[in-house]
Amino acid sequence: MEKVSIRQLERYPIYLNYLLSLRESGVSSISSPAIAKALSLSEEQVRKDLQLVSRSEGKPKSGRNIDELISDIQEFLGYKKVTNAAVIGVGHLGQALMNYKGFAEFGLNIVCGFDVDSSLIGTKVNNKEVFSLYSLSSKIEQFDIKVAILVTPKESAQEVANMLVNAGIKAIWNFVPVHLNINDKIAVENVNLASSLAILEHNLKQKGDE
Amino acid sequence: MEKVSIRQLERYPIYLNYLLSLRESGVSSISSPAIAKALSLSEEQVRKDLQLVSRSEGKPKSGRNIDELISDIQEFLGYKKVTNAAVIGVGHLGQALMNYKGFAEFGLNIVCGFDVDSSLIGTKVNNKEVFSLYSLSSKIEQFDIKVAILVTPKESAQEVANMLVNAGIKAIWNFVPVHLNINDKIAVENVNLASSLAILEHNLKQKGDE
Repeated sequence: MEKVSIRQLERYPIYLNYLLSLRESGVSSISSPAIAKALSLSEEQVRKDLQLVSRSEGKPKSGRNIDELISDIQEFLGYKKVTNAAVIGVGHLGQALMNYKGFAEFGLNIVCGFDVDSSLIGTKVNNKEVFSLYSLSSKIEQFDIKVAILVTPKESAQEVANMLVNAGIKAIWNFVPVHLNINDKIAVENVNLASSLAILEHNLKQKGDE
Repeated sequence: MEKVSIRQLERYPIYLNYLLSLRESGVSSISSPAIAKALSLSEEQVRKDLQLVSRSEGKPKSGRNIDELISDIQEFLGYKKVTNAAVIGVGHLGQALMNYKGFAEFGLNIVCGFDVDSSLIGTKVNNKEVFSLYSLSSKIEQFDIKVAILVTPKESAQEVANMLVNAGIKAIWNFVPVHLNINDKIAVENVNLASSLAILEHNLKQKGDE
């Protein structure tokens, strides 16, 4: 596997969204410097990032072919391969994630949900069944679930994460704003809404001061 | 205002979660090196980050007081000041965000929602009214709304963002995976779930290869 940094990885979906929006507007090719300018990145960064995922070369006059770039980035990000996931905690946010259609384009397929609430167990959300949290092990195997999308209340997040690890899950996408202690054989990625909001509020303050 | 980088800003909510989890377990003080180790950061980074927000000094033996650190970070991130926000697009995710109790601790107060669907307009979600998107200007003023939480379908995100800017909104927290073209007087922060997922899947692949 080629070496890629976390910061690079974060940028590819941003390139992808931008390229998709260009294609939508009927644009068929673009140069690296133009991408750099639109996304406030350095030209060198963009050139290096795109070289890593795409074998096609930009032409001096017209730039890079957008269709090819889109396909290369989707391939690189694994969007063309399907990974099965389950939502852990079928509250408001959990249900919204089970209903969200957009994950399909990232190659993420939510197959079911898990909860401890007996009024939820056995029901369906967006045609996906909600199982008891105590049937984790068997269902993870049965449905070949690789990713657990954690959306429990804060208080139970660590305990449920431990259950997930014991049940054989390999990756946790953590939407709960808590620090999880997990052994480092498991991939954990935190969705830091608080960090995102902190940046927004900081920028809001700065623009107000200008 | 002191200079702070985006990367630094991202780290403060992570420190905060970690410190809150320590306090929960009864710990009352901690050293910078211990924080660095737990969160896989460099000691120098942690020392610099904490110095920027906190005037209290760590003691050589016991380290820094956790209550003070928590309070200093909350203060710095503006969590003690309330900012009014509105959810734009009251679909599954929009409703989940309106129901989410966790934003209060970040100082974010969702006061209402907006939609174009006449079957939603006039209803309430978690006791917050849903207004017509066409009443944006008057409601933004009436409720002193600073932040728009954008959760529309992809297809209409740019058009609605333009409406928000025209209606006088100062900050957009964008949950829609599209690139928005917005004038740079408006603070825009994208919630890149796709980037977060890309990192998770990359780590999952790497751990599988180990």
